[in-house]
Amino acid sequence: SLDKETQARLDNLTKPTGSLGRLEEFAKKFVEISRIENPKLNNKVIFTLAGDHGIADEGVSAYPKEVTAQMVLNFLNGGAGINVLARCAGAKVIVADLGVATDIDIAGLRKKKISHGTKSILKGPAMSYEEAVQSIEAGIELFEDEYINGIDIVGIGEMGIGNTTPSSAITAVITSCSVESVTGKGSGINDEKYRTKVEIIKKAIEINKPYSNDPIEILAKVGGFEIGGMTGVILAACARRVPVVVDGFISGASLLLASKLEPNILDYIYASHSSVESGHKIILDYLSLKPILDLNLRLGEGTGAAIAIPIIETSLRMLNEMATFTSAGISNKDNK
Amino acid sequence: SLDKETQARLDNLTKPTGSLGRLEEFAKKFVEISRIENPKLNNKVIFTLAGDHGIADEGVSAYPKEVTAQMVLNFLNGGAGINVLARCAGAKVIVADLGVATDIDIAGLRKKKISHGTKSILKGPAMSYEEAVQSIEAGIELFEDEYINGIDIVGIGEMGIGNTTPSSAITAVITSCSVESVTGKGSGINDEKYRTKVEIIKKAIEINKPYSNDPIEILAKVGGFEIGGMTGVILAACARRVPVVVDGFISGASLLLASKLEPNILDYIYASHSSVESGHKIILDYLSLKPILDLNLRLGEGTGAAIAIPIIETSLRMLNEMATFTSAGISNKDNK
Repeated sequence: SLDKETQARLDNLTKPTGSLGRLEEFAKKFVEISRIENPKLNNKVIFTLAGDHGIADEGVSAYPKEVTAQMVLNFLNGGAGINVLARCAGAKVIVADLGVATDIDIAGLRKKKISHGTKSILKGPAMSYEEAVQSIEAGIELFEDEYINGIDIVGIGEMGIGNTTPSSAITAVITSCSVESVTGKGSGINDEKYRTKVEIIKKAIEINKPYSNDPIEILAKVGGFEIGGMTGVILAACARRVPVVVDGFISGASLLLASKLEPNILDYIYASHSSVESGHKIILDYLSLKPILDLNLRLGEGTGAAIAIPIIETSLRMLNEMATFTSAGISNKDNK
Repeated sequence: SLDKETQARLDNLTKPTGSLGRLEEFAKKFVEISRIENPKLNNKVIFTLAGDHGIADEGVSAYPKEVTAQMVLNFLNGGAGINVLARCAGAKVIVADLGVATDIDIAGLRKKKISHGTKSILKGPAMSYEEAVQSIEAGIELFEDEYINGIDIVGIGEMGIGNTTPSSAITAVITSCSVESVTGKGSGINDEKYRTKVEIIKKAIEINKPYSNDPIEILAKVGGFEIGGMTGVILAACARRVPVVVDGFISGASLLLASKLEPNILDYIYASHSSVESGHKIILDYLSLKPILDLNLRLGEGTGAAIAIPIIETSLRMLNEMATFTSAGISNKDNK
């Protein structure tokens, strides 16, 4: 099998067996996903999907709602965290509007707006079932549109003021963990706002009754457009055997939804990092994913994915470029 | 102060305060060390120092002694792990012979041989006090020779069959931890060889009585030439305010020695990763250093440092290239 062949190649490189630890795991996984013996990352693409949330008007975030659109402009001008980190990784950033509250018309933006923000989940579902399907389809289209240009690895991330709130709701529903355990302080709210946020999520779950075996129903009732969009990107990439590097908590919620639609996608996923948001560790444990990095990040946008991609690339270059014991004329281990 | 200025700059970048976590810590530390406001890593240099060990003849390693020299050739031919990982990081590798048992004469090798391998620490000291001083001085010279060409950041690593044994001895002596707790399976020995290794280290400590307030005496009694060399590189780099990225367990032993010579050097150190070798975690705890990565590495050569350097570089580019709230016209946090 390809898996055994790759292991044999790794073991013949000039290093003690297994001594490059998780780099070896990352390389083997990549070969297994892509079915390419000597994969190269010529085209690294990070999808940063934006959407607004009706619930942001209830004071669940430290930032006002208009910041979503302002940050989309920042992404397109190259000044945000994800732009800088993607440049470091040699990755292209695709910015898409899945549901920003205001209309944005600026060069480079991929327009996939489903609606002008979700509705408040305190008053009913975030979106209709049809809109939930549309958001996933929009993510699939985004991936396919870019796939024509070539994609060897995908990172996913997001921007949406208030979007840790739907992510916590989705996580509580799918993992059956308590709302308290999956709710964090997001972009940095104080204790009072945190208590309000927990109460809002509990109330939203009470009102919408999102417990369902259909992840699209969960997305419609307590999700968000960018969350559905990332679910679509994940599904499309996996269908094309392109590895997906998932960012933090919100993209983790998208991954939860994708894994309920198709459990096999988990074989195609790298978890880039472990976020400060408590719900993220719960997602990673629930999906049995071990993150590559733990750097106390909580920015989103795909920034964790952007830091992890070069490490995955390093693992592939190790596999492709290191000398073997035979080629370098080096004595192998003497105590088999 | 510079520290407060850098913090203010970080807090004005378009992201929630502190949301880039340890990246912010890495950038702030670099500015503090280098005293450069907008540091750039134009010249990244990894020093890979080689030396042999008399104790290798006692069967403490999974590999035969001649592998040290064979790997030096591999380094110079660009086929080893450190070569590939350094290329990924855009770093230059300087390979130096501090005490390889055989004579090597090949282009590119920095010749700083103190002696043809250390003596067996089961029979007496590894080297004389004068040789210990010479090995540290050789490291200082290596750094200074390259500093003329420009060095913005340094990684340190090593190659030396058997060199986890002296590293465990040094760690036991300096941290006062048990030999068992600081001894691992190195390049991959079996349980029987592991028990022998622990006994050898205990006996070597009994014979040489290395407990001393003078780290040079510890180095002479139970150390190694490449270990002393790395101590020298650390001291020289810190004197020039150049940040040092320390690799794993063996370079950690060099760091222990350097910190006993001059405790202030710890402010100039990045711990790249947490090694599989149990003694490494003990060193990091003892020195209160938090590693950047935890990837189950145990190769040495500077490979962990090579993976961490791009993350530090990313942190600097974040500081230098991200837009500010004002420049991007973004509303700041509303709940101060």
